[in-house]
Amino acid sequence: MTTASIQAAPSLAEHFARVRGSSIALSAGLSAEDMQIQSMPDASPGKWNLAHTTWFFEQFVLAREHDYRPYNADWHYLFNSYYQSVGPMHARPHRGLLSRPSLAEVLDYRRYVDDAVQDILASDINEEMASIVTLGLQHEQQHQELLLTDILHALYSNPLKPAYSTGSDTPATASVPMNFVNGHEGLVQVGHDAEGFAFDNESPRHRVWLAPHALANRAVTNAEYAAFIHDGGYREPTLWLSEGWATVQREQWQRPLYWQRDLVSAFTLHGVRTLDPHAPVCHLSYFEADAFARWAGARLPTEAEWESAAVALPVTGNLLRDAPCMPRAAQGEGLQQMYGDVWEWTSSAYGSYPGFKTLPGALGEYNGKFMSGQMVLRGGSLATPYDHIRPTYRNFFPPDARWQFMGVRLAQDR
Amino acid sequence: MTTASIQAAPSLAEHFARVRGSSIALSAGLSAEDMQIQSMPDASPGKWNLAHTTWFFEQFVLAREHDYRPYNADWHYLFNSYYQSVGPMHARPHRGLLSRPSLAEVLDYRRYVDDAVQDILASDINEEMASIVTLGLQHEQQHQELLLTDILHALYSNPLKPAYSTGSDTPATASVPMNFVNGHEGLVQVGHDAEGFAFDNESPRHRVWLAPHALANRAVTNAEYAAFIHDGGYREPTLWLSEGWATVQREQWQRPLYWQRDLVSAFTLHGVRTLDPHAPVCHLSYFEADAFARWAGARLPTEAEWESAAVALPVTGNLLRDAPCMPRAAQGEGLQQMYGDVWEWTSSAYGSYPGFKTLPGALGEYNGKFMSGQMVLRGGSLATPYDHIRPTYRNFFPPDARWQFMGVRLAQDR
Amino acid sequence: MTTASIQAAPSLAEHFARVRGSSIALSAGLSAEDMQIQSMPDASPGKWNLAHTTWFFEQFVLAREHDYRPYNADWHYLFNSYYQSVGPMHARPHRGLLSRPSLAEVLDYRRYVDDAVQDILASDINEEMASIVTLGLQHEQQHQELLLTDILHALYSNPLKPAYSTGSDTPATASVPMNFVNGHEGLVQVGHDAEGFAFDNESPRHRVWLAPHALANRAVTNAEYAAFIHDGGYREPTLWLSEGWATVQREQWQRPLYWQRDLVSAFTLHGVRTLDPHAPVCHLSYFEADAFARWAGARLPTEAEWESAAVALPVTGNLLRDAPCMPRAAQGEGLQQMYGDVWEWTSSAYGSYPGFKTLPGALGEYNGKFMSGQMVLRGGSLATPYDHIRPTYRNFFPPDARWQFMGVRLAQDR
Amino acid sequence: MTTASIQAAPSLAEHFARVRGSSIALSAGLSAEDMQIQSMPDASPGKWNLAHTTWFFEQFVLAREHDYRPYNADWHYLFNSYYQSVGPMHARPHRGLLSRPSLAEVLDYRRYVDDAVQDILASDINEEMASIVTLGLQHEQQHQELLLTDILHALYSNPLKPAYSTGSDTPATASVPMNFVNGHEGLVQVGHDAEGFAFDNESPRHRVWLAPHALANRAVTNAEYAAFIHDGGYREPTLWLSEGWATVQREQWQRPLYWQRDLVSAFTLHGVRTLDPHAPVCHLSYFEADAFARWAGARLPTEAEWESAAVALPVTGNLLRDAPCMPRAAQGEGLQQMYGDVWEWTSSAYGSYPGFKTLPGALGEYNGKFMSGQMVLRGGSLATPYDHIRPTYRNFFPPDARWQFMGVRLAQDR
Repeated sequence: MTTASIQAAPSLAEHFARVRGSSIALSAGLSAEDMQIQSMPDASPGKWNLAHTTWFFEQFVLAREHDYRPYNADWHYLFNSYYQSVGPMHARPHRGLLSRPSLAEVLDYRRYVDDAVQDILASDINEEMASIVTLGLQHEQQHQELLLTDILHALYSNPLKPAYSTGSDTPATASVPMNFVNGHEGLVQVGHDAEGFAFDNESPRHRVWLAPHALANRAVTNAEYAAFIHDGGYREPTLWLSEGWATVQREQWQRPLYWQRDLVSAFTLHGVRTLDPHAPVCHLSYFEADAFARWAGARLPTEAEWESAAVALPVTGNLLRDAPCMPRAAQGEGLQQMYGDVWEWTSSAYGSYPGFKTLPGALGEYNGKFMSGQMVLRGGSLATPYDHIRPTYRNFFPPDARWQFMGVRLAQDR
Repeated sequence: MTTASIQAAPSLAEHFARVRGSSIALSAGLSAEDMQIQSMPDASPGKWNLAHTTWFFEQFVLAREHDYRPYNADWHYLFNSYYQSVGPMHARPHRGLLSRPSLAEVLDYRRYVDDAVQDILASDINEEMASIVTLGLQHEQQHQELLLTDILHALYSNPLKPAYSTGSDTPATASVPMNFVNGHEGLVQVGHDAEGFAFDNESPRHRVWLAPHALANRAVTNAEYAAFIHDGGYREPTLWLSEGWATVQREQWQRPLYWQRDLVSAFTLHGVRTLDPHAPVCHLSYFEADAFARWAGARLPTEAEWESAAVALPVTGNLLRDAPCMPRAAQGEGLQQMYGDVWEWTSSAYGSYPGFKTLPGALGEYNGKFMSGQMVLRGGSLATPYDHIRPTYRNFFPPDARWQFMGVRLAQDR
Repeated sequence: MTTASIQAAPSLAEHFARVRGSSIALSAGLSAEDMQIQSMPDASPGKWNLAHTTWFFEQFVLAREHDYRPYNADWHYLFNSYYQSVGPMHARPHRGLLSRPSLAEVLDYRRYVDDAVQDILASDINEEMASIVTLGLQHEQQHQELLLTDILHALYSNPLKPAYSTGSDTPATASVPMNFVNGHEGLVQVGHDAEGFAFDNESPRHRVWLAPHALANRAVTNAEYAAFIHDGGYREPTLWLSEGWATVQREQWQRPLYWQRDLVSAFTLHGVRTLDPHAPVCHLSYFEADAFARWAGARLPTEAEWESAAVALPVTGNLLRDAPCMPRAAQGEGLQQMYGDVWEWTSSAYGSYPGFKTLPGALGEYNGKFMSGQMVLRGGSLATPYDHIRPTYRNFFPPDARWQFMGVRLAQDR
Repeated sequence: MTTASIQAAPSLAEHFARVRGSSIALSAGLSAEDMQIQSMPDASPGKWNLAHTTWFFEQFVLAREHDYRPYNADWHYLFNSYYQSVGPMHARPHRGLLSRPSLAEVLDYRRYVDDAVQDILASDINEEMASIVTLGLQHEQQHQELLLTDILHALYSNPLKPAYSTGSDTPATASVPMNFVNGHEGLVQVGHDAEGFAFDNESPRHRVWLAPHALANRAVTNAEYAAFIHDGGYREPTLWLSEGWATVQREQWQRPLYWQRDLVSAFTLHGVRTLDPHAPVCHLSYFEADAFARWAGARLPTEAEWESAAVALPVTGNLLRDAPCMPRAAQGEGLQQMYGDVWEWTSSAYGSYPGFKTLPGALGEYNGKFMSGQMVLRGGSLATPYDHIRPTYRNFFPPDARWQFMGVRLAQDR
């Protein structure tokens, strides 16, 4: 992680205010009850997300001040997520049972901690402190995306299928046809080395040899994925990884998460909506992305292939600004949709880069300990804050996860 | 079920208003979030309890009126509990995920249905209608007890161990020593035949032959149960039923539910409190009650033994009036605590009386279909509305259930 | 348990030889591998059955002799079933993993123990010793039935569907039409008091009041049960106990265990055979028996009703002599098939009789500790040794068990 | 896969006879019952291993002959492992329930198929046929290792802890001290391109850039691993991957599989034996290998690092010849134990090499479909046939697997 300079501290205060405010804005339309529920062990209640990100600042920023007294010492146990170094924690699957503290109390907690952090930011701070505050804001933004994906899952579990928000559909327009764009070949460098923040898992920058390959110019669309389904994709074991086929059978998968049985509509943040055939397909597991690619005579890109292509592109796309927008059809020449719309599954298992070092202390638990059993996704989604993504950013989820805004871009050997 | 006469209709309206109001009063101190959570599949959220009892009146009373339009047709699926005859239902373990409708909307629903039922009660109604309204109110009272036991479990699942209500402890006083009172012997009659309401499972009244026996004059106390624990009761397999011992090992039981590790305090509706050694032990499974009795050289009473003794006693004790009170030490001569304080496990498996007939239609699903795998409890508890209990009342739970206010009275062969 | 007199000791030796020999005869056609496998936790391997019954004599008969040295001290742990008083035991679900000792070694063990017991029986023995040997032989006979039911299940788990033995089908003949025979009414006595052996759970003899009722003259047939299936019995929740319906859905039950999808053939000890429409339906759970009775407008008998009718009948029927015979159509006037063919589910939960006392010591674990969660069956089956059954005999299984030879006789209120 | 030339056919016949005979030799000391049992879903019975490898030749070699009639058409379903392309199969966890066909019948089956294959090998065969026979023999050798690891697990499940074979312990000698040997740096080539057989997953040969690093000169020893345990390694969450720590807690791991509680002895193929402190530690999961490396201030090697070092070494070590030998202390200069003793966990997730192509047809299911959720191991073990291993060989198991002969070699960044 490179760090903000001391001079940036004033703008850090503004950035802090804006990012923290965004979390509140994203949950403004939700009731205390909506913010309470946890629809599966992997998801967290909205209220818990708001409290945990606040605890992060309290634990890693405020607690460094020698005279700081915790807002409520009993809450440490409740809102620690997985930092074993700083003590035991409430079991993740039971976060939805914490009716106390109430949402109102959590909002008070946020205000208290915000004020205390702003007091610190108002004075001269050293580089380390600045970098931890920055990390806390990046962390907050990750939870903004989770807040959206978790509430989508929670509302989906309600037979009434209520919407997170009203939203007008983007008029469906034809997307550009799929074609393949040659990628870099030979020795490339990947990983973070530029100015600005990056997580520890994006470093060190290192060399990778790339074989000849090409990337699809855009993400796979709903119509293309529907063709896979109509062709019997979910019934043909030879298209699937062994573990994927076992999952299809155990979970009775027949279509992406949130798709309706009719295969032309799906549950979204705006309620049940007709699927735009030209928009990127969303809410696929790695197993489905991989099976689709095999069916299509292609494969998934590696993360190095993806990054070496993405690094030259402007970091722009259907990312989160004030409110999430549904995926949209791709337009234009060259590689499209590399950022935003849907996270793109890569064929790379999530692991450490050569020479990887975790952050010192408890923050070393941030990324490194999850380096088994997960696959890397790249590029951000409609729920990723627009200033949170970068070419080297590595997201990771287990291969059966589907509740994030996940899709697929194809690749080919050349 | 015998039914109220038509003349009673005016007082039925008053009774309706009072019982329905009690549900609201019992949940008045709970937040929307408290009323949302479901801490285990066997429990229901408070909000759901309020909605389901309302649905019961809508389904079985209002829907009999030919021009009635449902308050919200989509809610039928949500708030039907287990009446297969009237349609499919939301899966019980997922009741806690229904953030919508909100508590405020459920309270509106209650008012709407209350007004509609009162309109009916304001006119002449026939005996059948009166009897269904009465059944609905008995049902409501059952859910008042469940509301208390379910919220106790829900709050217990929170590491903060918040209290349902503040409450002053009754000063601990010595309880009367345990002794055994001879019961009726030979042919007795049990089951309902008196005036007034009873559930279908309390009928028909029938003859049972009782062997010589005696009942303890009071419930087993916390101190007596602690002696069982200190004597290694939870480590000695020969004291337990085979299925009970398997449960002890699987669940790692070492003390009653809600007891703290120190064996002198427990979580209660009033938060963590010191156990009164003289008060009835509470939150025991059938397996624990049975093992304790074996350890004590006694046995559990049969439900016929219990009823034949209870029928002569006034229906009074530590039952629910405005707010629940903790179990209290027994005082006085003769059989004490037969009503109230804690439900008493009997050795009788829950089954049908000879000649049992279920109610016609969907209401036939009320009791009969649960006649397997459960044991009968008698006498009501501190959470049973004072006018809801009677000598013939049969409560029933699986033998590993502990979250109700359940205790134990001993019996002996003579 | 009443006991054999000392004078009977000579014939006890003969009886011992005959019963022990029957176990060997029943397994003679099975390979070491057939005798090894355990197809579900509730079943045991044939080899284990042979070893455990031998251990029973070693533990409860031979070990009483002060100078007895165990055949192999390490085997005590392996072949103790559930007698916690005499030490820990190998976990039941893992019995099928004991490839050592081999079948040949177990047969040696049997011969060794047989010789040692015969040495004892050759001398004067006291009444207590005689009664324990008798208990051991009754126990052996129970395991002969289990050996047949367990191997049937084990062979069924093999896609090749191999037969336990060849056997000629009894020619199908029409059964007598079903009609109902009035039972005893008023005060009756049930339970064991006669000469001869009985298990502890059959005592004490005691009074029961019977309401007016009638029993069907014969068991329900395959044709009658098929009519229930064709009428949608497995799809109609209101016919089922709540727990039964949950089981139907979870287990996807659509027909009795071992019935083929065609509903006209079934897997049997003789391989896949055409079902005799007139023979008793077999391999039903309690839940299915209960649902069938409800569909038929009848109910299951209580065990007291069953016993009070059975006590007057000769103990004869399709019971096990040399080799098991398939169930047969009922012929003749009056109550038929009360003994043999299939065990008959009663509506009585398995519990203790008034004044019940377990046997002293470890043998007290024989029956009493299973008195929860099980239902009583009466009358024996085609796999019950002909001299093992009696009117007071109480068999018991959980309500979802189906792998025993279990069927149903209807009853009615009068 | 490169293939044997036609001229090699005679020696292929000899090779076939030798490899097929080895399977029989390895199981010679086991009874029919030992060969029957399956101690966990991941393991297979010995009998099944013998039958499945035979089926492989029948399916992929004999069935290519137009007039071949299957030995027993019903067995196809039983002995197909996971080749979805050629039909459905018996569920893996139930392989231990197949008492029929018997071991004797399976041995007959082997002889029949062996004769038929030898008939083919006696004539001129084309290159494709030769390559499939070769694949079948490589497959057979993989199952020879599995036969040993599966029977070790099966015998371990028996409280009697019987030995697979008697065997004299190698006298314990001090191992060479651990030091680190610099590896290749920069661009290297890995993957198969040499003469001779290789599996599809070892190709294509491709370039990889290696950062500066070093490999330990030998495997971690029992004494070194015991020091990790004594230092609290199994109680310190920060040493573990998140998924690893969850496994430690769920499975209550406290030491390697097969180690006794005393930490100085372990169950082996020769029964319970004292651990040689200087020999490689064995039966570790990836999670344990990774945690140990972190504790030791090192890391696991990548598979490319391992291979680039191993390619220069002679393929020799403690591999399987006639009978398995326990791991031994390392002696000598430079990299030791790269082949044999224990498989070495790498930090590389099992995936496809750039440009990977599966074999055509059903054989394409051999390796590729397992490329998710598993980690690569390198170098072979004491149970790997000596002529089965090579520098490019990629073994793979889930990160929690421990029943193979798995150990750990450390690596370091330089």
